[in-house]
Parts: sequence; C-alpha cells; structure tokens
Amino acid sequence: MKKATDRDKLEAFQQYDAWVFDLDGTLWKGSTLIPGAKEFIELLRYYNKKVFFVTNNATKSRATNAAKLTAMGINATQAEMYTSSFAAAAYLKAISFNKKAYVIGEEGLVEELTAVGVQCVGGPAHRGVEVDWSQAEPHVEVDPEVGAVVVGLDRYISYYKLQYATLCLANNDSCMFLACNTDARGHFSQAQEWAGAGTMVAALIGSSEREPMLLGKPASFILDHLCATHQVARDKTIVVGDRLDTDILWGIQNGAGTCCVLSGVTSEAQLLAESNKVHPKLYMSDIGDFLTIKNQIPSNCAIM
Amino acid sequence: MKKATDRDKLEAFQQYDAWVFDLDGTLWKGSTLIPGAKEFIELLRYYNKKVFFVTNNATKSRATNAAKLTAMGINATQAEMYTSSFAAAAYLKAISFNKKAYVIGEEGLVEELTAVGVQCVGGPAHRGVEVDWSQAEPHVEVDPEVGAVVVGLDRYISYYKLQYATLCLANNDSCMFLACNTDARGHFSQAQEWAGAGTMVAALIGSSEREPMLLGKPASFILDHLCATHQVARDKTIVVGDRLDTDILWGIQNGAGTCCVLSGVTSEAQLLAESNKVHPKLYMSDIGDFLTIKNQIPSNCAIM
Repeated sequence: MKKATDRDKLEAFQQYDAWVFDLDGTLWKGSTLIPGAKEFIELLRYYNKKVFFVTNNATKSRATNAAKLTAMGINATQAEMYTSSFAAAAYLKAISFNKKAYVIGEEGLVEELTAVGVQCVGGPAHRGVEVDWSQAEPHVEVDPEVGAVVVGLDRYISYYKLQYATLCLANNDSCMFLACNTDARGHFSQAQEWAGAGTMVAALIGSSEREPMLLGKPASFILDHLCATHQVARDKTIVVGDRLDTDILWGIQNGAGTCCVLSGVTSEAQLLAESNKVHPKLYMSDIGDFLTIKNQIPSNCAIM
Repeated sequence: MKKATDRDKLEAFQQYDAWVFDLDGTLWKGSTLIPGAKEFIELLRYYNKKVFFVTNNATKSRATNAAKLTAMGINATQAEMYTSSFAAAAYLKAISFNKKAYVIGEEGLVEELTAVGVQCVGGPAHRGVEVDWSQAEPHVEVDPEVGAVVVGLDRYISYYKLQYATLCLANNDSCMFLACNTDARGHFSQAQEWAGAGTMVAALIGSSEREPMLLGKPASFILDHLCATHQVARDKTIVVGDRLDTDILWGIQNGAGTCCVLSGVTSEAQLLAESNKVHPKLYMSDIGDFLTIKNQIPSNCAIM
C-alpha cells in the first residue's frame, strides 16, 4: 500500500458518484476545517457528485451538524447529513415502532427520535435524577410502555439511568436494545480523548447481559438507508474517513470504495503496520490532497 | 445429581475443615437470616471448624459486614470476613503497591484501600463532580501519581468519574485496572434486581479497550489468600453459595468442595438443566438442611 497518486485519485473521482465523508478528523478537527476540505467538496459539487456526511456522533441532530458545517464554509443540507442518532430513529421508523423509547443520550438523540414520532422517556429529562437510597426498599419505577432502550453518548450518565434501562431490558415485553454507536472514545476537545458512547453501551451490556443492535458505523444500516433513499449503487460509492475500525471497515464490509485520511486518529505507521488488517483502497495525508488533480479532471466526469 | 442425603452431609462435615459461606442468598436475604443459618454456623464452631464469609459486595468494608452478621445473630470476626473490596486492597498490599488508586466505588472500598496504606483519589470524594462543558476546551485534570484504577459498585457513577478513570488507564504510566467484581446485577432490595459492579467495570472496558484483573469471585485471589493466611488446604475447604457462576464455579475452579443452596438466585430447575455445566458436589434447599445431621456427627469430627 502506498499513498494515492494523482492517477489513483483521478480514477476514484471518475468511478464514484457518491462521496460519503466522516466529519471529525476528516473534514474538521474540533472547530477548525481541514485545509482543502471546502475546496474539494465544492469540486465534487461542481461535477454534480452526490455528497454525504456521516458521523457516529449521537449527541447532535442532523440539523445541528448541517448548520455547523455550513457555518464553517461547507454548504450541507439536512438530507445529506447522517448521524447515528438519526440512524436509530430511521430504524425505528422503518420497523413501524409504536412504543416508547428509553433514551440514554442527549438532546440530539431525543430530537431525532421525536421527529419520527417516537415518544421518549429519559435522556435529558432524567438528568440529575437519583435513586432514593434512604428508603427501606429502594425502587425505580419503569414505564411499561418502553419497548426500546436507545443508547448514545450521555455526558450526564447516572446510576438511575443505567438502572432504569437495565430494568426495561430485563422486564419490559420484547424490549429492544439499540446502540447508536460503540465508539470507545471521541475527540470532544483538542487536548484529550473522551469516553465515548461505547462506554454507556458497554455498561448496559454488563448489567443486562444482552447484546445491542448497532446502527452507526461500522454497521450497514446507514449505507443501506443512504443508497436506497438517494438511489446510488454501492460500487459507485466511496467512504472517506480517518478511522480504520469504523469508517474504513464500514466501507469495506458494505461493498463501497474507501479512502483513509491521516488527518485524524490513524497514523501512517498504524495503517501500514502488519498487525493492521483493515486496508483502504486509497490513503492520503488529508482531504486537501485530492486538490492536486483539480486541473486534470476530464469534463466527462460530470454526472448529468 | 440429587439433593444431598444425610450420608452426603455427614461425609462433607467430616471431610472439610474450612467452610466458606457466601452471604446474600446463602446466610441472609436482605435483612433476614435464612432459617437454620445461625444454628449450622454454631454447629461448625462447636466442632472447631474454621468458618469464613465471602461476599463480592464491594460497597461495605469487612468490619461493616462482620458487624451486620453479628447483629443478626451469627458471630463473625473481621478476620473471617472477605469482601471483594478487601481483596483489591490485599492484592495491592501483596504487590507492595506504592502509588495512588483511583476509585470508582463507595466508602467501603476506600476504607479497605486506606487500611492497607493506599492513598485514594475519587470514589465518594468525586460524587457530584461534573465536567465543565461550558469551557471552550473542556478538560479533566488527572493525578499523574495514580497507578491503579480500582472499580466496584458505584451507585453515584458519573461521566466525570468514568472519564477520569479512562484517562488514568490511557495515559498514566503502567496504570493497573482492577475489578472488585463483575457481577451483572445484585439484590439490594427485595422487589427488584439492581445494576451491579459489572456495569461500571464494563463501562471502563468499553472506554479504555483494556481488560481488568478480577479480584472477587470467581477469581482465585480470595481463596489463595484465605488458604495461605489461615493455613487450610484446598481439599479440606468447601464453598457454600447460591450462585453457580460465582460461588460454585469459584470452588470448582480452585479445587475446593462445593455446596449449592437453592435459597438465593438458583432454582432446582436451573441447576439440573442440561444447559448448566456448573455442577456442585452437593446441593440442598437451604443452609438449614444441614441440621438434619446434628445428632449423627461422630465425636472424632472435631478439630483439635
């Protein structure tokens, strides 16, 4: 494996009609755009390519993420934006779920679930609620209409929320267990890594001894939904991302092209290490590297 | 397998010098002694048998547990009492640990660690502490002298604590990861099961992608410590408990005799099910069942 040449990039540009970008570490880092990101997205749009943005982040809604990207200079619509919170909501909608969801997660997750008509219990509404341990028989009362526990990153996780969800999973009739994503850690600030949604999901696996259904990367659901909704073929779709275990694995497992950028969590040494079994089709320093082909693109690349 | 006969019980009484009892579900349920428990312990003591009490509960210290048992009518000393919090402390003492411990857990765990000279960070002292997300660059500052993260049940678990522990495990030089126990659920009240220490341990496995060293049942440490400290042989030791996956498995894996009582979480149907691969040497309804042999014990059973 070696860094993509201009020829590799031109081939990819010609082959793929749908370009699926990860956000953090790929298009931005914290609150700064990766150099060249804006120009490359504009280049794709100039040639009428379809552009999508997919993040495992479950704390913000699609609207919020699209607004952030637009404010940073990359125009993005809500329809082009996929989050793992949206994926959970879209899945429940797809199976005509008509019970309540118990949410371990933040506003963005509740927003997406509510938007598809799912009534939410927990989430921000249970922030700060504690079990009353002073009682002789402490008790957590659970809504029997909860038919799914939906888990994303929750920076206000508590024993009460974990216990509530554990009881739903144990006692509520055929209660589903959905994980927005299982990312171990995320980069919510420049200086340090932060415990990710995988923390909350693992906690509930530990207490319930059940396994969740995963909706975010690297599970197939978002690519299935994206390709079906926007009528694009898998072999005309490429995933561009910085994480081998989510982005690149996701693309490979689902028959899409893959491009790893080294502007996020993966170093060239990690990528090329013999122990690494996840090999992207292309790799480059960052998304801006694509711009070297800007003046070499044949005009027949444009989608009509 | 069939319920223990008087002959089976007499053989066990003669064979075993050290009797290791689980507490919850075996000697007591909530705040009530199991009928016959007091009398059987007294019978063992009358014949000079060594008696020990082992619980995976990490929230209370040995002193507190011994006092509870004594108050309920079964005399117990601190030296006879083993908790998974004590096990974590004894392990750190055994390896001459001289750094600080970051505690996810409650007062009893801090008490045991402090008693062996380990300086504790976190635990109850971090109850209610939250990350300041209003800052442009949120940050959790970690004590670089923390050399072990010790995890037990924490009914005040928070994102701050999980993040603090995750950072220690990721960044502090050769930081150890110790789990008091990995019990999925416990019976802290009669009416419902509660998320156990396994919840907090799993959360940290999820965020750190590391595996902990387990100190409580079914790991060997407590039996190793007990047999060495009190000079009893494994084949002269029997474990009496209600849980197949902790108590009975623990005894089997460590070369001790085993007796399963059906007064706790295990039913006779579960025990005898073909899917169950954990087979105790003896089983009976409850500890009181041993009393049927009270007047048949040969006088040469007594240890001098």
